[in-house]
Amino acid sequence: MICVLAGGVGAARFLAGLQLVVDPAEIVAIVNVGDDFDLHGLAISPDLDTVTYTLAGAVNPDTGWGLVGETWSAMQALERYGGATWFRLGDQDLATHLYRTQRRNDGAPLSVVTAEIAAAWRLGLRLVPVTDDPVRTMVTLAESGDEITFQEYFVHRQHSVAVSAVRFEGAERSRPAPGVIDAIADAEIVVVAPSNPIVSIGPVLAVPGVRAAIESRREDCVAVSPIVGGAALKGPADRMLRELGHEASVEGVARLYRSLARTLLVDEVDAASAEAVRAAGMEPLVAPSIMSSPERAAALARTVLASARRTSPGAGS
Amino acid sequence: MICVLAGGVGAARFLAGLQLVVDPAEIVAIVNVGDDFDLHGLAISPDLDTVTYTLAGAVNPDTGWGLVGETWSAMQALERYGGATWFRLGDQDLATHLYRTQRRNDGAPLSVVTAEIAAAWRLGLRLVPVTDDPVRTMVTLAESGDEITFQEYFVHRQHSVAVSAVRFEGAERSRPAPGVIDAIADAEIVVVAPSNPIVSIGPVLAVPGVRAAIESRREDCVAVSPIVGGAALKGPADRMLRELGHEASVEGVARLYRSLARTLLVDEVDAASAEAVRAAGMEPLVAPSIMSSPERAAALARTVLASARRTSPGAGS
Repeated sequence: MICVLAGGVGAARFLAGLQLVVDPAEIVAIVNVGDDFDLHGLAISPDLDTVTYTLAGAVNPDTGWGLVGETWSAMQALERYGGATWFRLGDQDLATHLYRTQRRNDGAPLSVVTAEIAAAWRLGLRLVPVTDDPVRTMVTLAESGDEITFQEYFVHRQHSVAVSAVRFEGAERSRPAPGVIDAIADAEIVVVAPSNPIVSIGPVLAVPGVRAAIESRREDCVAVSPIVGGAALKGPADRMLRELGHEASVEGVARLYRSLARTLLVDEVDAASAEAVRAAGMEPLVAPSIMSSPERAAALARTVLASARRTSPGAGS
Repeated sequence: MICVLAGGVGAARFLAGLQLVVDPAEIVAIVNVGDDFDLHGLAISPDLDTVTYTLAGAVNPDTGWGLVGETWSAMQALERYGGATWFRLGDQDLATHLYRTQRRNDGAPLSVVTAEIAAAWRLGLRLVPVTDDPVRTMVTLAESGDEITFQEYFVHRQHSVAVSAVRFEGAERSRPAPGVIDAIADAEIVVVAPSNPIVSIGPVLAVPGVRAAIESRREDCVAVSPIVGGAALKGPADRMLRELGHEASVEGVARLYRSLARTLLVDEVDAASAEAVRAAGMEPLVAPSIMSSPERAAALARTVLASARRTSPGAGS
C-alpha cells in the first residue's frame, strides 16, 4: 500500500499519475482539511473535492479545480442579492457541498462523507481527510496584522498580499481520522505530494500524531518538491516560504522536510541544487517533475516508487 | 395601508392582483413561516419565496412556485450522491437560500433578510415574515402516528396521506416580527388571503399577539375563502379540513374565521351557501374568486377592498 499526503491540485495530479501505475486499491490519500470552510452555511472542502474530481476525470482541466462542463446559474443569481460570489461554486459542484453539509448535519463524520462521495464517483483509491475535527488554516497579513481564513487569503484576496504568520486553528485539539495513523504505519511507501509545504502539508502535520508517524517512516518516505526552479508551479508557495523566513528553493524545501522523508525528488532544472539538498539533510533524486499530462504524472509516480523501493539509500541523482 | 395575511401560491396571486389596484407602497404582506425548514444546511422559506418570485413576475407560471426559466444542474448532480432531491431546488432559486443562510448565520433576523431579498427583486410592497423566531408546522400522520415536518408531508409525501393533527412548534415562544402588530393595527383594511386556513394562516395566528390584533380589527377584516365548491383550488386544504374535524366548505371556513373577519368572500359557485356563511357568523360576499389571470386577481382585490370600505355591513351578497 502507498500512502500519499496530499493538498490540492498538485497532489491530485500526482495521485492521478500514481493510479495509472499502481492498483488504486493499494493507494491511500491523506488529505489536507485546513482549507475547509463554511460559506452560505455549506461545508466546503476544497482539497478533498479537487482530488476527487481529478481522480474521477471530471475536473475542469483549465483551472485544475471545479468540474468540467460546469454551469454558474446559482452564482449569477447570487449577484442579484450582493451575496458572496468570490468563491465560485458551480451548479454541479454545489451538489457536493449540499450533500456533505446534509450528512454532516445528520452527524456523519467528514471521513465517512468523504468515502461516500468518493464511492459515488467510483474512485478506486481510499481518500481520507487527515482529521474529522475542524482544523482551519488562518493567515496573518503582514501589512494590517489582520488574521483571515485561508480561502479569504487564497481566493478572495487572490494571495496577492504578504503574509506574516500561518497557524492551524483547532489542530492541537484534533485527532487523526480513523485509519490515518495505520495507513502511514502500514504503507510500503509514504509520499509527500508536491503541495504547498506550509498551507497544504502543514495542516496535515499539525494533527497530533501525524508528524511523528511519518517521521518514524522516514526511511520509506519520498517527498516531491513543489518548488521548481525557485518558484511554485501553482499558487503562492514560493512567496509564502520567503515571507515566513524560509527559502523558496529545493534546499529550503529540504530543510522543512528532512525529518519526514529520506528522499526529496527535485526537478531536472534544479539538478545543480542536488548537493545543497544533500547538505540540507535529504537525499536528492533528480527527475522530470512537471505533470503537464497524465503520462508525465505517471512517469513521476513511477520514479518516486522506484526510488523508495531501492534498498540502498542515496541513489538517483 | 392594506395588511394581508399570506400563505403561498394563493396569497401570492392575490397580492399580485392587489398591487395592480393599490399603490404597492400601501401594501404590507405578513407571511407564514411554518413551512420554513432546513435542508442541506440551507434556510428555506417557501412561502416568502413564492410571494417574492410571484410579485417580481419571476415565478414559474406552470407550478406557481420556483423561478421561470429555472435550471436543475445542482439537483441532477445531487442524484449521484443519493442526496435528498425530493425538495427540488433550482440552480437560481438556490442563490436565494444561499444568501438567506449566509445572512442568518451572520446574525441578521429573517425579517431583515426578507426585506433585502424583496429589495433585490425591486418589490414595491412590504413583505414581513410573521415572526423572526422559528415556528415549524408539524403534521401527525393518521395511520402511523408519526409526526413529520410540513414539507415532508406536503412535498416528500405529496400530501397523499391522512393527517390526524397539526401543531406549530415554537409558536408559543415566538414573538411577532417588528412591524407586524403595528401593520395590523394601523391598516385601513386587513385581508386574510385565500390560503390554507390550517397550515398557512394557522401558523400566522399562532404567533402570540397576532390573533388578538386581528380580532380587534374584525370590522375591517375580509377573508377570501380558499375553498371553492367544497374543494381547495390547490393543495390539500379540503382533505385536511375534513381530516381535522372541520367542514371543507365555505361554511366550514366561516366557522374558522368568524372571530377574525366580518366578511367572507366566497366564489359564485358557492352563492347558495351564502346564508350558511351568515349563519356561521360571517357576512358573505359572493364574487368570482378564481385568479386564473392577473386581471381576475385584480378584480378580486378590487371587490375585497370595496367591500371593506363600505360602511354598512352585510352588503355584497
